[in-house]
Amino acid sequence: MPSYRAPVEDTLFLLEDVLAIHRYDNLPGFSDASSDVLRAVLSEGGKLAGEVLAPLNLSGDREGCTRNADGSVVTPKGFKQAYDAYAAGGWMGLSVPEEFGGQGLPHVLSTAMQDFVSGANLALGMYPGLTQGAIAALLVHGSQAQKETYLPKMVEGAWTGTMNLTEPHCGTDLGLLKTKAVPNPDGSYSLTGTKIFISAGEHDLSENIVHLVIARIEGAPAGTKGISLFVVPKFLVNEDGSLGERNGVTCGSIEHKMGIHANSTCVMNYDGAKGWLVGQENRGLNAMFVMMNEARLAVGVQGLGQSEAAYQNAVAYARERLQGRALTGAKNPERAADPIIVHPDVRRTLMQIRAFNEAARALALWTALQSDIAHRSQDATERQLADDLLGLMTPVVKGVLTDRGFANAVEAQQMFGGHGYIEEWGMSQFVRDARIAMIYEGANGIQAMDLIGRKLPKDGGRAMMAFLTEVQTFIKDHGEDEAMKPFVGPLQPALNDLQAAVMWLMQNAFTKPDHAGAGATDLMHLLGTVVLGYMWGKIAKAALAAKAEGRDAERMEAKLVLGRFFMERTLPETSLRLARIKAGSETTMALSAEAF
Amino acid sequence: MPSYRAPVEDTLFLLEDVLAIHRYDNLPGFSDASSDVLRAVLSEGGKLAGEVLAPLNLSGDREGCTRNADGSVVTPKGFKQAYDAYAAGGWMGLSVPEEFGGQGLPHVLSTAMQDFVSGANLALGMYPGLTQGAIAALLVHGSQAQKETYLPKMVEGAWTGTMNLTEPHCGTDLGLLKTKAVPNPDGSYSLTGTKIFISAGEHDLSENIVHLVIARIEGAPAGTKGISLFVVPKFLVNEDGSLGERNGVTCGSIEHKMGIHANSTCVMNYDGAKGWLVGQENRGLNAMFVMMNEARLAVGVQGLGQSEAAYQNAVAYARERLQGRALTGAKNPERAADPIIVHPDVRRTLMQIRAFNEAARALALWTALQSDIAHRSQDATERQLADDLLGLMTPVVKGVLTDRGFANAVEAQQMFGGHGYIEEWGMSQFVRDARIAMIYEGANGIQAMDLIGRKLPKDGGRAMMAFLTEVQTFIKDHGEDEAMKPFVGPLQPALNDLQAAVMWLMQNAFTKPDHAGAGATDLMHLLGTVVLGYMWGKIAKAALAAKAEGRDAERMEAKLVLGRFFMERTLPETSLRLARIKAGSETTMALSAEAF
Repeated sequence: MPSYRAPVEDTLFLLEDVLAIHRYDNLPGFSDASSDVLRAVLSEGGKLAGEVLAPLNLSGDREGCTRNADGSVVTPKGFKQAYDAYAAGGWMGLSVPEEFGGQGLPHVLSTAMQDFVSGANLALGMYPGLTQGAIAALLVHGSQAQKETYLPKMVEGAWTGTMNLTEPHCGTDLGLLKTKAVPNPDGSYSLTGTKIFISAGEHDLSENIVHLVIARIEGAPAGTKGISLFVVPKFLVNEDGSLGERNGVTCGSIEHKMGIHANSTCVMNYDGAKGWLVGQENRGLNAMFVMMNEARLAVGVQGLGQSEAAYQNAVAYARERLQGRALTGAKNPERAADPIIVHPDVRRTLMQIRAFNEAARALALWTALQSDIAHRSQDATERQLADDLLGLMTPVVKGVLTDRGFANAVEAQQMFGGHGYIEEWGMSQFVRDARIAMIYEGANGIQAMDLIGRKLPKDGGRAMMAFLTEVQTFIKDHGEDEAMKPFVGPLQPALNDLQAAVMWLMQNAFTKPDHAGAGATDLMHLLGTVVLGYMWGKIAKAALAAKAEGRDAERMEAKLVLGRFFMERTLPETSLRLARIKAGSETTMALSAEAF
Repeated sequence: MPSYRAPVEDTLFLLEDVLAIHRYDNLPGFSDASSDVLRAVLSEGGKLAGEVLAPLNLSGDREGCTRNADGSVVTPKGFKQAYDAYAAGGWMGLSVPEEFGGQGLPHVLSTAMQDFVSGANLALGMYPGLTQGAIAALLVHGSQAQKETYLPKMVEGAWTGTMNLTEPHCGTDLGLLKTKAVPNPDGSYSLTGTKIFISAGEHDLSENIVHLVIARIEGAPAGTKGISLFVVPKFLVNEDGSLGERNGVTCGSIEHKMGIHANSTCVMNYDGAKGWLVGQENRGLNAMFVMMNEARLAVGVQGLGQSEAAYQNAVAYARERLQGRALTGAKNPERAADPIIVHPDVRRTLMQIRAFNEAARALALWTALQSDIAHRSQDATERQLADDLLGLMTPVVKGVLTDRGFANAVEAQQMFGGHGYIEEWGMSQFVRDARIAMIYEGANGIQAMDLIGRKLPKDGGRAMMAFLTEVQTFIKDHGEDEAMKPFVGPLQPALNDLQAAVMWLMQNAFTKPDHAGAGATDLMHLLGTVVLGYMWGKIAKAALAAKAEGRDAERMEAKLVLGRFFMERTLPETSLRLARIKAGSETTMALSAEAF
């Protein structure tokens, strides 16, 4: 059976050495995250992930969710107990303000925990994951009364949350939505319509489910300017906070999916369901975006989590499976064959996945740290820079970490040969589960369009300029350091490729938007490759410093090798991406729709 | 429900215009394949694929195979009738010599039909596919008596075949196998052992199943030099050809797999089963390689077939799904949104898949034609060149067409957003089914090692030199032709990259084999990219000629656009592959096994 061990030590190294988290002790919540607290929190979180959540991953996939005739949904065996353990550990509110029952710790810590949970059991992790997204939206846009009604129960884990956007005829283009909200005399609304692909829409893990739903108020403008956000609880909440009658929202069916079988993906029917407006009328998409941005980072981390889990199991197999001999002579002469980890092509696979994982983890935590700074810093300049980087990197974390995370799961599965294709080995599940992360919360093509169409030109390209400057400064600062040369040297041409791509797009795409569309995915991956390379630069710097102090020499040496591997094998992709972007859109758009 | 339409016209164009098949009318069987015959055969085959096999694809996946308590296996509803239609159409023996009931047509035609069948229903196609492999092995290595006993029934489709290599502890490294063969006084052998992952090992489609099994004769040397091949029928065959008693071979269980659910993948238990030696004692691997080489080409074609099927369904969806507006203004103003085919990133996806599919089909057919020439030509020089190219391209067709075919299925699925993840839409099945082709018949890493370790150095690199010369000549011959410049121009640097990679390996890898191992997968894809580019050069030439003759101007113009797209977007990958190969193996091999 596959297993999972949370990368606690690596995460601590990233937080303390690479990201120097203690430099931010002046921000609210950060001073509570001392070294001891970090270690205690991550160790506990790692234990929960490895010992409670991971053992239910394969069985949850096999069993899946079941919808009963009355519309109730049963989750797989053990899920309720595991969810309760998660809630009891206080994980739901790790970075929620204390006034609503949370612990107020930095968001970067929640992100580390999301990594562990996503690696251990993606389908299970989605139940609290959606809840955390709903909490974030209510925190920003809910009224004080709504916060007081819902947040403490959600933070406690007694109630869970969902996000209801998609309808059968619209996913990306939410302006087409048809769900209607009719005002009631008491200030509430009656919602009617059908929502699809609603993760955790109905289940047996919590006492109540708090649906956040977008709908059009009767008479509101067509398109995205007439969308409002509503909170629609499964059970109405009485004045005293107790649960009242069942609301008019039911699960019509659950989907038969490629993966994440243990998460109930529901068709939700709203039949005059009672809901309350969250935030302003017709500004619902705005409010939903808070939840979506949070969710996009979390989904990127899911890609990483699956890549890590697949990697760990591939390493175990590569050490145990005896097959063939090393090209340089038997390494295991007393047995009939060598373990396959001696083969260069097997190592190439493992190195490639791990060199991605470590940098991707750094990127996810670095981006989460920008979110903390943007929300908690007292310094307006610092806040703006952090917010710029957060906005710029959100589509990259979502799109690149899930594309590569999936590809890595496939590569790890490949190492198992035929066994990788058999469900009981668990490698197929990593691939099937990782696949969803490329799709939901905005398919990766949409992320690429968000990057090139919104994030890149915003404020005259300020965010991208800030990023280019930061990396260029890093290269300058360390270019003379002999030990840093293998990391800084290759970074310069990669950065040049990114700069050239941005320049080309500025000169060509604003007048001809199809050029941007045709290059969008390549730009997302180009930026992703550069920022992962930059992360390796930062990791290398910290590893060299730790080594010089005599800390963990072997582990640090391994990181330097992995960083060099990334520079040699992955970073050169930037020139291919640039070539594709510069190819423009003429050929791509030349055929008529009928010619396909 | 997903559908499939066989690319009959494209295949005819490739055979007649691009590969100029009629130039080979002097070879046995080719003169029977007149234009009219080609069109009739491919149209009929296409009809069978699209109308009989394809409609059972989704239902076959959902239903899967069932093993009864007595060890018998039931295939999904409709499979028996569809298989019978395939057999009745004479497809099994399309290129088998007439003396055994076949039609003696060129192998290249069987390959075209494999493409159609694989696109329509991969799991179903595997039953006849394995049979054709077994027929090929018996044709080359079977005794006259064995051929007479088994081939007519197999060609007729009344009996099917299998290939039994893998055991629980050995897949790639067959030298470790444990299945034992003990000689009987009557000249037969008693086989005992367990084989796993046996496709079509047991089912209800045919009256008898002819297992080809490798085993070690008692007292034979250890390792690969003590392996012999046996034919072991499920039912023993009486002197008069009728079926006798049940042999001691049974299906112990069937696997629960990621995909190809409708193909029964069996654990086969041999318990003193009666078998007869095929070919020479201890030369079984040799004999098995005939079957494996045939099978590897067929598996490459499976990757193409799934890519084609996924593409066709993605095109249909992209034309119908209304979502968002074109970047250049509404294309469908009378409706609420434009079809998503207006979006450049969607087109990029479709162009990329199709530009691969057409070149990959050309490559598969070109390689099959080499097989025909190698087996049927009277000219020893021509035979040798064809055999060289066939050997060189076999791992490329297998490895590259399945890697890319899978990636394309994933890209096509991505276009469906959330619907792509729901099983009833069928896109998930293409991905899950395509996945196996990267694994079986030698995982793709093994193909890469076969290329770099055997095919490249063989006969002093003669095959690679022949290929390099052929492409260089093509470039020279058409370099001055203005219309060919977009195709020939980019081919030269790509060819240079391949030449540089070969040179680097010659200088570095023979003394340090780990360099070869670490670069193997990149070399396979580098050669694959160049040969696909070369195929586009050949297609462009034929398309320009057809256009000049006024034939099919629009379709030919589309091919020229697709070819340019390939040159602009895919061909530049060669420099990345070269950079990775030249990175060598130091970093890849630097870590200890414990450091992973």
